[in-house]
Formats: sequence, C-alpha cells, structure tokens
Amino acid sequence: MSSYLITGSSRGIGLELTRQLAAKAQNDVGTIFASARSSNGPEFQKLLQQYPNRIVFVPLDVTDVESVKNAAKLVSAALEGKGLDVLINNAGVMNYGPIEEMDDLEDTFRINVAGVHNVTRNFLPIMREGEMKKILNISTSLGSITRQPVYKDSRVPSYKVTKAALNMLTVAYSQELDKEGFTVFCVSPGWCRTDLGSQNADLAVEEGANAVLNVLAKTGQEGNGNFYNVHVPGWENNPGMNQYDGKGLPW
Amino acid sequence: MSSYLITGSSRGIGLELTRQLAAKAQNDVGTIFASARSSNGPEFQKLLQQYPNRIVFVPLDVTDVESVKNAAKLVSAALEGKGLDVLINNAGVMNYGPIEEMDDLEDTFRINVAGVHNVTRNFLPIMREGEMKKILNISTSLGSITRQPVYKDSRVPSYKVTKAALNMLTVAYSQELDKEGFTVFCVSPGWCRTDLGSQNADLAVEEGANAVLNVLAKTGQEGNGNFYNVHVPGWENNPGMNQYDGKGLPW
Repeated sequence: MSSYLITGSSRGIGLELTRQLAAKAQNDVGTIFASARSSNGPEFQKLLQQYPNRIVFVPLDVTDVESVKNAAKLVSAALEGKGLDVLINNAGVMNYGPIEEMDDLEDTFRINVAGVHNVTRNFLPIMREGEMKKILNISTSLGSITRQPVYKDSRVPSYKVTKAALNMLTVAYSQELDKEGFTVFCVSPGWCRTDLGSQNADLAVEEGANAVLNVLAKTGQEGNGNFYNVHVPGWENNPGMNQYDGKGLPW
Repeated sequence: MSSYLITGSSRGIGLELTRQLAAKAQNDVGTIFASARSSNGPEFQKLLQQYPNRIVFVPLDVTDVESVKNAAKLVSAALEGKGLDVLINNAGVMNYGPIEEMDDLEDTFRINVAGVHNVTRNFLPIMREGEMKKILNISTSLGSITRQPVYKDSRVPSYKVTKAALNMLTVAYSQELDKEGFTVFCVSPGWCRTDLGSQNADLAVEEGANAVLNVLAKTGQEGNGNFYNVHVPGWENNPGMNQYDGKGLPW
C-alpha cells in the first residue's frame, strides 16, 4: 500500500493520473496526495468527492517555497511517521510562439524546473522514510535535443528549453540519490488531448496517463536516471512525429 | 574585416577572446565590441587602453532588457549601417554545492540562458545586416546530459542544468535562423584556468580561447545547430575527464 504525491493534479494528465491511481486496489495504492494551487475546477472537485478517504487535496504552488514547505508538513502529518513512496512532478506549462517573441522563458523555467527542484528537495526527508523511493518527472520528447529535427515546426521554445533543463535536473538528482536506493527518472507521456496538448493530439488523456503508470510500475532502480517513452500498443511504428514504443529516449 | 560582439569580456575566457581577436590582423578582424557590466578591472582596462581604436567597450548587463537594447543601439550606431558579423555569448556564472542546497537555480538561469536569449534576439536585426551571421554560444561538456556519468563528482548542478537549457536554446535558434544563412552553434571551451574554472583546470586560458577561435573560424553553416568540443593538441586521448579532440559532443 504505497503513498503518492502528484503535482498539478487539478487538470490534464495530473488529474487523470490521480483518477486512475484512486481506482486501483487499496492493497496497491494507499493515500494519494493530490496537489494543485487550488481545488477549484469541477472535474477535480468531482474526483475529490468521489474518493474522500483515498485522495487528500494538498494546496501547493510549486513556485512558492513557503507553500511547498507547508505542503510537506501537511503530507508528513497525514502519513503519521510513514514515508512518502512516490512523487510525481507533473505540474508544468507550455506556451506557443516564435522564439524571437519568447517572453515567458524565466516564468516557464520557474514552474517547469525550479518548481520541480523546490518540491523534490522539500519532500526528500519524507521520501527517505518511504519504501519505494520513486521520483517520476513528467518530461516530454519535445525536450530531447537530439530529436529536435523532428520537432522543428513545434513552436514551443520555452517548453523545449525548460524540459531539456528538467532532464538534466533529473539526472543530477538520480546521481545524488542513487546510493540511498532512489529511482529518479523522467517519462514522456506522449502527446495527449488536454488543455496543454490541444484536441489535435495523438492520445486520449486516459491512454497517456495509463501508459505513464505502467512505466512507473515496472521501473525499478535499474531505471534510475533514465528517460523513457511510454508504450501505447499500436503506436510503436507510427509514421508521424511520435512513436510510443516504451523505449528509452535520447537526450 | 569582420565585427565581433563578446559578452562577459571583462575577465576569464571572454577577456582572453577579446585579447586574441584584437591581436589578429586588421584585414581579418575589424571592430571588437567588448561588453560587460562594467569596464572596471585592471586587466580589462589595460586591454582597452592597448587597443583604443579596435576595441569598443559596450556596457551591457545580459539580464537587463533595457541595458541590452541600449547596447544594441550603441553597436548599431558605431557600425554606421554595416551589420554585426559575429556574436559570442560568453557571459556566464557557475556556483558549487550539493543539489539539495542549490539556491541559485533561477538566478543562474537568468544569466546563462535568459541572458543569451535577451542578447541574441536584440542583436538579430543588426546581425541580419552582417556578412558572417555566426552566433557562438559558450557552453560546456558539463552541460551534456549524455556525459553526466563522467561528471558525477562535479558538483555544479545549476551550471549543468542551465547549460543543458542553453544547448536547447542554441538548437532552437539554429532551426529558426537556418533559412537566413545563420550559423548558431555551441562550443565547450574546455576546463580553463580562470576564476570560474579554478587553478586546478586542464588548460591555460590562452589555450582554451585560442581553441574556441579556431572552432569559430573553421565552422561554416554546415555546423549550424552543432555542439563542438575544442581541439587542443596533446589532449585528444587524455585519460582524465576531458579529451579535447575537436569532435562533436553528445547532447
């Protein structure tokens, strides 16, 4: 019975990860700490009401150190001395536009990278008491520098730059925490139909979230410091930009 | 006779790049715009006095948009309608410490990445009038995610994270400007004996700067979007962390 904390739980992939975890058997998934800046939003409210004993809403703004510290206290108290097993750093933003007009670089970094650092380092003391010690950072194949020729026409420069930075942050944490038995890794959830991904995306959000949880479940410490693609059956040899073959992605 | 703008010219590699460019023949190197936050510093002062007709000091704080815009106006006026040929984004900072104690991530990003974006986009109009259209971003092999196993014990997490981000920014600009004939690329200057690199480093700053200028000179548009190591004879097969073989570095 493992405990989970997910950031950015109020919508998109974070909401769907929370929903799918809550639907799993209680001997598998214990308390789910669903964090977001606010519990507003009709879908999130509905989910919180559906699982009042399994999902704990945690107010958390990843860019606000005091908010992160308060969230860590709340989670620590709720776990009553047990550790937190899994942290999913999912909160993130993406803005469109040509690179010469990019005005959101620092703001996007604050959320997509510094936010992950804030959350990770403040929850580490609780995670050190946990059993699974898994930290999964939601990245994207758009953050693969190697694959940029494929994504030339995807004009989300601040998203690409900050996700490449997140990948390096992931590796740096994986090296630091390796000897303590942690698994710190990143996963590209695929292009999902969410507010962020638009309705033109490849996958239903249910498919993407399910595939992320599959990677999470099957990845042990051998995956520490790795960057995985999700596996979605039927998409392994897709001739478009994205093949969801479950393999490692290049940096 | 090409014109150059170098950021972070007051010390370290930037100072040495400025010095070596100023020593080149006038039919090769024309005006050198040496930018820094301040012209203080005895070595920088000495260089400015040595070449009063070749080096123009440009006050520039890469993190301050107004300062960057003013610098672009100054350079544009000095060039009297000719374009700027080469931009070397060299200004950068590096701080030591364990990742859990990293408090400088956003500040370091502001200088090492957002600063490069600020300078690049504000000088692009002048560079579009230039002949060579080369933008060289000073990166580091420490910013190669692929090579992190080698750099596990180099505890400069904010430097690594921001340089990986800079590498992505470089590729994004290279894609955007390819059709206009630009060459936007990054070079790792090697570990040089400067304030940043410490006196334990592999190379004299003269060796590193000379090797960077060699890469700059020989790289044409075929190198657009690439990440090069410097070549320093004798260091190709060094058994330590760094081999300076002049080859491409992995992302």
